[in-house]
Amino acid sequence: MPEETVITKGLIERIGLDNAVFNISVNGEKKEEVTDIPDHEVAVKMLLDKLTGFGIIGSLDEIQGIGHRVVHGGEVFNESVLITDEVIEKIGELSDLAPLHNPANLTGIKAFKSVLPNVPAVAVFDTAFHQSMPESSFLYSLPYEYYEEFGIRKYGFHGTSHKYVSERAAEMLGRPKEQVRLISCHLGNGASIAAIEGGKSIDTSMGFTPLAGVAMGTRSGNIDPALIPFIMEKTGSTAEEVLNILNKKSGMLGVSGFSSDLRDIEQQASEGNQRAELALEVFANRIHKYIGSYASRMYGVDAIVFTAGIGENSTLVREKVLQGLEFMGVYWDPARNNVRGEETFINYPHSPVKVMVIPTNEEVMIARDVVEKGNI
Amino acid sequence: MPEETVITKGLIERIGLDNAVFNISVNGEKKEEVTDIPDHEVAVKMLLDKLTGFGIIGSLDEIQGIGHRVVHGGEVFNESVLITDEVIEKIGELSDLAPLHNPANLTGIKAFKSVLPNVPAVAVFDTAFHQSMPESSFLYSLPYEYYEEFGIRKYGFHGTSHKYVSERAAEMLGRPKEQVRLISCHLGNGASIAAIEGGKSIDTSMGFTPLAGVAMGTRSGNIDPALIPFIMEKTGSTAEEVLNILNKKSGMLGVSGFSSDLRDIEQQASEGNQRAELALEVFANRIHKYIGSYASRMYGVDAIVFTAGIGENSTLVREKVLQGLEFMGVYWDPARNNVRGEETFINYPHSPVKVMVIPTNEEVMIARDVVEKGNI
Repeated sequence: MPEETVITKGLIERIGLDNAVFNISVNGEKKEEVTDIPDHEVAVKMLLDKLTGFGIIGSLDEIQGIGHRVVHGGEVFNESVLITDEVIEKIGELSDLAPLHNPANLTGIKAFKSVLPNVPAVAVFDTAFHQSMPESSFLYSLPYEYYEEFGIRKYGFHGTSHKYVSERAAEMLGRPKEQVRLISCHLGNGASIAAIEGGKSIDTSMGFTPLAGVAMGTRSGNIDPALIPFIMEKTGSTAEEVLNILNKKSGMLGVSGFSSDLRDIEQQASEGNQRAELALEVFANRIHKYIGSYASRMYGVDAIVFTAGIGENSTLVREKVLQGLEFMGVYWDPARNNVRGEETFINYPHSPVKVMVIPTNEEVMIARDVVEKGNI
Repeated sequence: MPEETVITKGLIERIGLDNAVFNISVNGEKKEEVTDIPDHEVAVKMLLDKLTGFGIIGSLDEIQGIGHRVVHGGEVFNESVLITDEVIEKIGELSDLAPLHNPANLTGIKAFKSVLPNVPAVAVFDTAFHQSMPESSFLYSLPYEYYEEFGIRKYGFHGTSHKYVSERAAEMLGRPKEQVRLISCHLGNGASIAAIEGGKSIDTSMGFTPLAGVAMGTRSGNIDPALIPFIMEKTGSTAEEVLNILNKKSGMLGVSGFSSDLRDIEQQASEGNQRAELALEVFANRIHKYIGSYASRMYGVDAIVFTAGIGENSTLVREKVLQGLEFMGVYWDPARNNVRGEETFINYPHSPVKVMVIPTNEEVMIARDVVEKGNI
């Protein structure tokens, strides 16, 4: 920073298990090491050793800030924050809302804090961007005390990605973000749609958890809630077991019966597999309907953006999602739509509603927030 | 019939309990009797006695057909049918999908059959009109075997009402129903929206049960499915208990905290009650978004129809639902919208998309089907 250049990237897997895997890229070349990494503090030390060992940085003093992606900021955090003891405590308290993620995020925060205690660290929340939603969007029509007592409301996720593409889209349109109504479609293995008005999220498809909204790789998205007790009774399962099925065995995997990966499904559909075609139709149909829904929500729309793995790369999904939206001013160009992973407009020039593909970049958003909130 | 004149109407309540109530209108005047009515067969006999006793009909021979509203026709019935022993058996088999309703409907069917065994009786299903939905609309993105083994799919309800208003709308538009794309909003204590293309339902907001879709008087509509296990854990309730809360303590009642009746809520909101305003916003917001969603679904829309208690009578709800839809060609007229229970257009004459209020009439649809299927 401030050039926003990626100098390295990597991944550490299986921490605390046998044969942990350490991955790092050095000048674009991937280096992998399989070894024992008993805990996150050891992992952080190993990372720092490698950063200097491979000459990626000259010394640890060059590290001026650390960014942590944290899943759930609840109603406490509506933007990124410099991590203090109080912030750590609050992230811990929010574990009730994200029991799988927030404790893990805290483990990472504490490991870096122990190894680099004097470097400013910033937490960037997946929910923060959606905290601008009005109550009529975020409130479920449940007994109101569930909201007051248990924090039951729509939080939304993928906020960092939706924020990135919405800012980039405004730049591409050459208009201040305050004057743009945008529908952002983050379509990956997890998928969410957001209605972004004047730079602020005013509605989004994910809910209290990332299960809600559109159909995804393995998640069901919205279903009739009455199905949970019905499935419990039919299959003799507990509510938690059914929830596990909705999260891990549903979506495109459930409909197709063979894969949660859109590439497999597109391949099989092109060879005439009917269940694969059906999975594609169900997936695209829900997104297509959200676009109409959010256009209504904002009294119209200026641009539609596709991002993340599927959104950036699947010409076919974009085609199915955009089909027939001319009635609301969306004139997309099949030729321009034939792109993969490229930042570009895919509408006809005369189209009142613009349509764009914008590769997402959550890392740069985190880096920017580290610079800003860390006063670097 | 065929004049479609209502010669009487009535209601029998508390059958099998103390102080059952028998209600019937005679020349528009309501007659009520409180008495013991031990079972449905006695109720039917009492009804027939009163019909002749009050001179509403001259003799029982004048009864040429009987129509039964049956809630669930599953995938077996896509239209009304003359009731045979086989039909009775199938309605019974479908009780699994509607355990509260189908057995009760069968009780009524059997009681009439016992008292008037030679009069043709016709079953009219609340689900039948929606059987034209394509698989991409009706299939949940759940493991496919749930559909095959347990019949888990979207069925939709209020079919008789949606069908009535869609046919009436086509007449009012002066166009064959095959050429009309319609969004029908049946808004009563229960509420559902349907996308009707060429006279056929192709999508609807209710689902496997009437709980799904928009927020209603006491029903939640769609929520994040993950909330059910969460609420179970937080409140120490069973799945069935949570389901009961979603059906009976949610919706406008849950949000407002004081009533499921829109009239109370509008009243309180006008006096500045914020929770009442919020209930109104949540209710209207979900319907507003469905309109955009279903316009997308049909690649545009020719007319939007409001029906049932709220849809026919609430100027305020229609106003909130229609607000800001000009981007898709909906130009509604606040002056014309100021109507209650009247069949009329409420759009400006130049509006590409027409908007209508059409009082529903499920009874005449049932009567027509009795004449047709009963060969009368």
